Amino acid sequence: MTKYESMFTMRNLLVLSLALNLSLITRVFFDGEKHGLFFSVENQKQRGPSFAADKEAHATQKTLQSLSSSGQEGMEKVINLDHGDPTMYEKYWMMMGERTTVVIPGWYSMSYFSDIKNLCWFLEPEFAKQVIRLHKAVGNAVTEGRHIVVGTGSSQLILAALFALSPKDGSEPMSVVSTAPFYSSYPVMSNYLKSGLYNWAGDARSFNKEGPYIEFVTSPNNPDGFVRHSMVNRTGGILVHDLAYYWPQYTPIPSPADHDLSLFTVSKATGHAGTRIGWALVKDAEVAKKMIKFIELNTIGVSRDSQLRAAKILEVLTNTTEKHGSSDSGESFFEKSYHLMAERWRLLRAAVNNGRMFSLPDFAPGFCHFLQQETQPQPAFAWLKCEDDAVEDCESFLRGHKILTRGGRHFGVSPKYVRISMLDRDINFILFLKRLSKIQS
Amino acid sequence: MTKYESMFTMRNLLVLSLALNLSLITRVFFDGEKHGLFFSVENQKQRGPSFAADKEAHATQKTLQSLSSSGQEGMEKVINLDHGDPTMYEKYWMMMGERTTVVIPGWYSMSYFSDIKNLCWFLEPEFAKQVIRLHKAVGNAVTEGRHIVVGTGSSQLILAALFALSPKDGSEPMSVVSTAPFYSSYPVMSNYLKSGLYNWAGDARSFNKEGPYIEFVTSPNNPDGFVRHSMVNRTGGILVHDLAYYWPQYTPIPSPADHDLSLFTVSKATGHAGTRIGWALVKDAEVAKKMIKFIELNTIGVSRDSQLRAAKILEVLTNTTEKHGSSDSGESFFEKSYHLMAERWRLLRAAVNNGRMFSLPDFAPGFCHFLQQETQPQPAFAWLKCEDDAVEDCESFLRGHKILTRGGRHFGVSPKYVRISMLDRDINFILFLKRLSKIQS
Repeated sequence: MTKYESMFTMRNLLVLSLALNLSLITRVFFDGEKHGLFFSVENQKQRGPSFAADKEAHATQKTLQSLSSSGQEGMEKVINLDHGDPTMYEKYWMMMGERTTVVIPGWYSMSYFSDIKNLCWFLEPEFAKQVIRLHKAVGNAVTEGRHIVVGTGSSQLILAALFALSPKDGSEPMSVVSTAPFYSSYPVMSNYLKSGLYNWAGDARSFNKEGPYIEFVTSPNNPDGFVRHSMVNRTGGILVHDLAYYWPQYTPIPSPADHDLSLFTVSKATGHAGTRIGWALVKDAEVAKKMIKFIELNTIGVSRDSQLRAAKILEVLTNTTEKHGSSDSGESFFEKSYHLMAERWRLLRAAVNNGRMFSLPDFAPGFCHFLQQETQPQPAFAWLKCEDDAVEDCESFLRGHKILTRGGRHFGVSPKYVRISMLDRDINFILFLKRLSKIQS
Repeated sequence: MTKYESMFTMRNLLVLSLALNLSLITRVFFDGEKHGLFFSVENQKQRGPSFAADKEAHATQKTLQSLSSSGQEGMEKVINLDHGDPTMYEKYWMMMGERTTVVIPGWYSMSYFSDIKNLCWFLEPEFAKQVIRLHKAVGNAVTEGRHIVVGTGSSQLILAALFALSPKDGSEPMSVVSTAPFYSSYPVMSNYLKSGLYNWAGDARSFNKEGPYIEFVTSPNNPDGFVRHSMVNRTGGILVHDLAYYWPQYTPIPSPADHDLSLFTVSKATGHAGTRIGWALVKDAEVAKKMIKFIELNTIGVSRDSQLRAAKILEVLTNTTEKHGSSDSGESFFEKSYHLMAERWRLLRAAVNNGRMFSLPDFAPGFCHFLQQETQPQPAFAWLKCEDDAVEDCESFLRGHKILTRGGRHFGVSPKYVRISMLDRDINFILFLKRLSKIQS
């Protein structure tokens, strides 16, 4: 096969996928127009974060009428909003064309080692550079005096943190806690290997055991979206800040996070879940070393290809961010994503408020130093409550309407709550709104 | 930035790296010529696996004289042969030009999910297809009736197998054994989380505990290169076959492996360690499901970018393999790699046999159905023994000569042994031979 034949095969694959995705977008635009929804990035470009209230109310009313009166089309399809699969962002990156395309020749990055001089020998220097640049541009985390540890998603870093922060010779396993509702994976990840180093000790609110403990502080919180601070506040407590959602599209950014150990992931920052790339900012070199050791034993490092790709994506993202406020600001990833989330939350709240069956949390606005204005929290998940007395298990109830969500019990609270992904593709989000409106009609 | 500017930036990076690597190759060729070594692929193309014995002996003698009489150049450099970093293969993939180049646009493979219809929902279908095609072409493993589970390197699959094969409600941890000398990571990986599910129970030869157990059978074995079979053979034993080195460049392939659970990795098959991609062939769907669950909890899947890249590399590799025997056979990856390993082992044996300080294992030849001839095992690691009575710790002894290796104790045997990577770049392998010759001169 010649060079060009080989490139052609790859291109074929890509063109095919592009075609599939474009057809999806076409469908979304078609549905959108019919229902009075305009998710097009072009349209959002012309609006600021806050709209005139009357125009908004009118548009929402029109949309909801349209949703509930529309026919049965798509009503048989199961909508899976159980996972936080961030496919909503595909459209932005398509619009950015080949700016974030990576080209990796066959002989490139074959070695296990990315940077033998770095404590984290499997960290690609270019990825580290772009992480620092991004945090500086967004102002959401202090990187000075921190070691960057890259992980196969932030999941691996959660496990690495548990390993690093638990004493090796403890008389009993270290307690792991988080305030309910907590990320549903914390209990499972803490317990699935029956480790003698650490185990799950439940809701931080009711934790009263003496001795050292690890507390996960997820802020904004998964599943409910609220800003969180440590709950236990006792001697011997070690905090791990899971800041996967501490980005301007989800929450106001008042100041750079300045913790001992913070976790981030490209999945939620840019939408590239399939790359499986996360990073930790770690103050203490000894903790960083132990996390690195964990990743060595677990997977002997982290995909270099995905790190190279993530570096390119973060580079372009930061480029668009630095243009923020200039005539080019329409292309800013965070601005566009902020507007998209604002639109989705506006529509969801309108659909929920149109009946009495469901409720959503209310958030206080805050000043976002990145967007330079007061903004509303608009989380990556909707934490929906079934208010109907007849419904005990909201997850089962919605499953009956072919909407897959994750019930409150997974998060340590009542089954009257469910967590619903707000990051799916337009077509599924629209179908979800349609069904919600239909349930309440 | 336009499409072309962006491509240009990436190209710059690549061209720079290419330049660095080419300068390395130039140095190797330069050194090689001076010392009478010819690692050039072009030269090997003209030779079959077995050379005329007298020509060989003459060339070896000349090489060794040249090595021991050469000056002090490079003698200060530390040669790290502790890890099995397979950088030797870079040259082959460079020679293949852009045939294995992958191009991944920013919007591609963003979702967590590769194939929601597959049991292994994070397995890229194209990667699975190429794995099956490769095994069929090489004839080293039965893939029919197997589930493919992809992992972040085979390390993650080793851990996934431990999780999947240990009962969840056992009264005590499942014993994990392997015959010494065993892969140095097995004990550490089994014990580092102090799991209640499994723990390391040592050398399979002396294992006499009642009840169920997991036995790792590594064949050819890491570190010593011998073909292995299960050792314990008792009721309740579950075997995991680690076949990372069961490829024609390292060992004769008598027949396709046909086990319950076999592990492979691109690191050792093609040399792409940085991609962190391995795969398991699993007979029992329930075991496969539990392994998949482990990977979900551990890293929520496996880098899709690296799977796409590995798929492309395996595709091209199999293409060269299918041409095997034709006029194009000179390009066959396995033939070329076989010749390179044969050359390295010939030179190493000659260097070792030139004195009385060291010894190497002797292997029986076998018929390789892939190469259609009798071949010698030529492992990815040399298992060197210090025969000198004055040397108790061979690792320390060699470290004194600036050669980093891994001592026997890590593998459960005497420190008189060391494991030495045979897969480093030419320049380091040549330096290593030089030093070995100097030590014995």
